[in-house]
Amino acid sequence: MNKYLERRNRLRALLAGETGIVVFLGNVESPAQYFDNAYKWRQDSNWLYYFGIDEPRFAAVLDLDSGAETVYADDFGIDDIIWMGPMPSVASLAEGAGVGNSGPYAGLDAAVAAARAAGRRVHWLPVSRWYNAVKMGGLIGIAPGECFSAGKKGCAAASEPLVRAVVKMRLVKDAGEIELLDKASELGYRMHTAARKGIRIGRIEQEIVGDMESVTLAGGWGVSFATILTQHGEIFHCHSHDAQIEPGRLLLIDAGAESNEHYASDNTRTYPTGGRFTARQRDIYQTVYECNEIAFNMTRPGVKYRDCHLAAVRHMLDNLGQLGIVSGDVDEMTADGVGGLFMPHGLGHNMGLDVHDMEDLGENLVGYDDDQVRSTQLGLGSLRMARRLVPGNVVTDEPGIYFIPALIAQWKAERTDKGRVNYEKLEEYLDFGGIRLEDDVLVTEDGARRLGSRRLPISPDEVEEAMAADLLP
Amino acid sequence: MNKYLERRNRLRALLAGETGIVVFLGNVESPAQYFDNAYKWRQDSNWLYYFGIDEPRFAAVLDLDSGAETVYADDFGIDDIIWMGPMPSVASLAEGAGVGNSGPYAGLDAAVAAARAAGRRVHWLPVSRWYNAVKMGGLIGIAPGECFSAGKKGCAAASEPLVRAVVKMRLVKDAGEIELLDKASELGYRMHTAARKGIRIGRIEQEIVGDMESVTLAGGWGVSFATILTQHGEIFHCHSHDAQIEPGRLLLIDAGAESNEHYASDNTRTYPTGGRFTARQRDIYQTVYECNEIAFNMTRPGVKYRDCHLAAVRHMLDNLGQLGIVSGDVDEMTADGVGGLFMPHGLGHNMGLDVHDMEDLGENLVGYDDDQVRSTQLGLGSLRMARRLVPGNVVTDEPGIYFIPALIAQWKAERTDKGRVNYEKLEEYLDFGGIRLEDDVLVTEDGARRLGSRRLPISPDEVEEAMAADLLP
Repeated sequence: MNKYLERRNRLRALLAGETGIVVFLGNVESPAQYFDNAYKWRQDSNWLYYFGIDEPRFAAVLDLDSGAETVYADDFGIDDIIWMGPMPSVASLAEGAGVGNSGPYAGLDAAVAAARAAGRRVHWLPVSRWYNAVKMGGLIGIAPGECFSAGKKGCAAASEPLVRAVVKMRLVKDAGEIELLDKASELGYRMHTAARKGIRIGRIEQEIVGDMESVTLAGGWGVSFATILTQHGEIFHCHSHDAQIEPGRLLLIDAGAESNEHYASDNTRTYPTGGRFTARQRDIYQTVYECNEIAFNMTRPGVKYRDCHLAAVRHMLDNLGQLGIVSGDVDEMTADGVGGLFMPHGLGHNMGLDVHDMEDLGENLVGYDDDQVRSTQLGLGSLRMARRLVPGNVVTDEPGIYFIPALIAQWKAERTDKGRVNYEKLEEYLDFGGIRLEDDVLVTEDGARRLGSRRLPISPDEVEEAMAADLLP
Repeated sequence: MNKYLERRNRLRALLAGETGIVVFLGNVESPAQYFDNAYKWRQDSNWLYYFGIDEPRFAAVLDLDSGAETVYADDFGIDDIIWMGPMPSVASLAEGAGVGNSGPYAGLDAAVAAARAAGRRVHWLPVSRWYNAVKMGGLIGIAPGECFSAGKKGCAAASEPLVRAVVKMRLVKDAGEIELLDKASELGYRMHTAARKGIRIGRIEQEIVGDMESVTLAGGWGVSFATILTQHGEIFHCHSHDAQIEPGRLLLIDAGAESNEHYASDNTRTYPTGGRFTARQRDIYQTVYECNEIAFNMTRPGVKYRDCHLAAVRHMLDNLGQLGIVSGDVDEMTADGVGGLFMPHGLGHNMGLDVHDMEDLGENLVGYDDDQVRSTQLGLGSLRMARRLVPGNVVTDEPGIYFIPALIAQWKAERTDKGRVNYEKLEEYLDFGGIRLEDDVLVTEDGARRLGSRRLPISPDEVEEAMAADLLP
C-alpha cells in the first residue's frame, strides 16, 4: 500500500473517537533578502511525513467522518513553466500520495469555512512558519501568533488529539525511516570528517564551515540546522565564524546533515586546535566522553531517558568533585541541580525529519510521558526527551561541560550552589570554553545502536590519533 | 560622520516636505524546519543600509518633526547569554549606528500607537517577510498580506514618499558600497571558477553545487540567491540538481555570492558539458555573447537601460534570422515583441544589498523613471531596470536565448508571432535548452565597467580554452 496512505490510515485509527476535519498545511517559499528571493526550499516535516509531496503551496483536508481526502494546490500556468519548469499535475502528485481528490489552493478556504459553518471541529497542528500562521489563523479566525506552540507548553488553540496522534507515530521510526536516518548519518560522518581535516592554526573558522557544508550540499539537502563551529563552546548556539583558529583552544563543532529525503543527523565533537589536548582539557574531555558512554550504555527499551540524563550528570559531578571544583554528596548535588551550572542543557532530544523532532508540536507532549512532570531546574528543565524509551525511538546523546563566565558569576552572587562549588578552583577555568560530545542513537528491541556505520573518533586518544593522521601528506 | 547617521540625514532631507514618523523593521530569525531551527540569519537590507546592526529583532523610529531617533530592541538576559553568547547592549549598538535613544522592542508598539493616536502620519516600507508583515500590519491596523508589494506595482498601503526617497539613495552606490560590490564579485569569480572546474560527464549536478557553494560559505555569507545549475537552461529558476552531467549538453550556472557585508554578486555562464561546443551550440552561444557585449558597450550615463535591452533583442533577432529561425524586418519584430519567444525576461536588474536590489519596494518605482511606462509584452515586460542610467548604478547584463517547448507550442497554436517564426526550423531546437551570459556592471562617470578585477571566461574560445586547462593535471 502507498506509504503515505498507510500513515494517514493509521492516523485516522488513532483519532477514532474524533469527528470533523483535519487540515494539513504544507510550506510556501520563505523569503531571505526579498520576497521572491527565497531561502532554499524546505517542506514542512508533518506534510512530508503524511503526504511526501515536496512542492510549495500544498494543503490537504482529511474528513474524519466521511473518510474523504483532498489535496489543494494550483496547477502550473505558462508563466510558472517558463520560470520554474514543468511540474506534474496536482492530481497526479496527489495520486502519488494516495489521495483521490484534488482542487485549487483556494479551495482549502472554502472547505474549512464549510466545516466551521456546519459546526464541525477543525483539527490542525501548531505551525512552524509565519506564512502558515497567517494562513491557519485566517482559516480558524484567530491571530497568527496563536497558531504557534508557546515553547514547551504547546499550542492551546491547536488540536491536542491530533498532536498526540502525530507524536505517537513520528516518535517511533519505521524501517524505511531508519534506513534514511542511517544514510543521513553517513553524510554527517563525512561532513564532520571534512571539518576535522580542515582544522589548522591560523585559518578562519568560516573556512572550515565552507569545507564541511560543501559535503552536505553535494550529497544532501544541506545542514539540518545552522552550523555551530566555535572556539567558544560555552556559547551553545554560537553562529559567528569570524575568529581565527588559535593554538591551545578547543574547537566545538555541532553540526548535522540533512539528506535529500530530509532526514537529519546531528553530531558534536570538540577538538584541541593544535591536535593534542592539554592535561586540563583532557581531564574535562575524558569526563564528557565517559558521560556520553554511560548514557549510551543505559539506553534501552523501558528506561526513562530522564534517568540517562541524571546518570550522566551524576558522573560529571563525581569527576568534577575529584578535580576539586565541587564538593558534597553526588546524589544530593544532582537532586539540587548543581549539574546545571556546568551543563545547563538536556542530555538529548528526539531526531527524525526534524533535528529536534516535532519540537513545534510542543516539547512536553513530544518528550514527556503523561506521568512525567518537567523539571524547572536549569539543565534538567531543558531536557527535551525524558520518556520511557521504546524500540524505534531515535535520540541524541550529548552531554557537555561548559564554563560560562556570566552564569558562574550569577551563581556565585546568588549562592545558587548552596556551598557546593569551590569558586576559587572554578575560576581557573573561566577561559576554558566548553566541550560537548554528541552521537545519534536508535533504540532497538533489546538495547541501542548508534546511527550510521561508522562512529566519529571520540575518545581522547582516538581524536589525537585521527588529527595526527590528518596531518600526514 | 557615522555612515548610517549620514544616510538617515540624507533620507530626512529627501523627505523634507513630509511630517510624522518613519518606522524601520529589522528581520527576526526565519524558521526552516521548526520555529527555533532558523535558516541562516539574514538582516533586512533597508535596515542594514540605514542602521547596519546585524542582529535579529531590532526596529527603529525616526521622528520627522522633532528629529529624534530611537532604536527598539531587547537586551540579553542570562538565558540568552547561555544560548547565544554575550551581545553588546542595545544602547551601545544604537550608538554605533549613530542613534542616541533606545528602548525595549515592545516600545515600538507604544511609539507607533502614540503617533497614530495623535493623527500623525506613519511612514513605512513594504515588507519582505511574513513576520514583518504580521508585525507591521498589527502596528498599522491592516492585514499582513497588505504589507507586501503586489509584484511590480508596489504596496499601496506603504509610504510612497519614503519608498521614493530610499530608492533614490540606494540606486546610486557610494564609494564604500562599490568597494564591497567589487569584493563580492571577486568571491563570485572564485565560486564560478570552482563550479567550472567541477564539470565532468557523469557527476551529479548537486556535487558541483557543493563545490561552488563551499567557496561562498568559506569566504562570505553564502549565496545571494538559490543557485541555478542545470542542463535545462530553458527553465529560468531551475533549482533541481539531481541530474547527471551528460555529454553534448549545455550546463547553465546562474549563481551569486553574498559577502559577509551582505553585498551581492550575480553571474551566469553556460558551459558545454564536454568542454567543446557543437556547431549548433556555438551559433546560439556566439549570439548571446554578442548581445551581452552590445548591451555593455551601450551602458553609460544618460542611456535608458530599456534601450540596451532592445538593442540586445534586435541583435538576437537579426542573428536568429540568419539561422532561418525567424524572418522579417528586425525593427518590426522587435517592436512586436517576437524576441520574447526566445528571451522572455529582461536584460537586467539593479544589484546591491539585494541581488534584485530593492525589488520589494515595488519594481516599477525602483526600475522605471516617472516618464517610462512598463511594457506588457513577454520579455520586455519583465525588464526590471529600464531607467536612464546615472553614475553609481549597478546593473546586470544578462541576455539569453532559450528554446522552451511549452512556450513554442503556445505561440504556434495562438499565432502570436504573426508569421515571423519558421516553426519547422525552430522545432529542431526543442532539445537545445538555453543559454544565458551575465555580468555585473557599474555605471561610471563616462561609461561603465564590470565589477571585480577579473571577468569569467565568456567568449566561446575563452570558455573552451579554460575548460581544456581545467582538465590538465
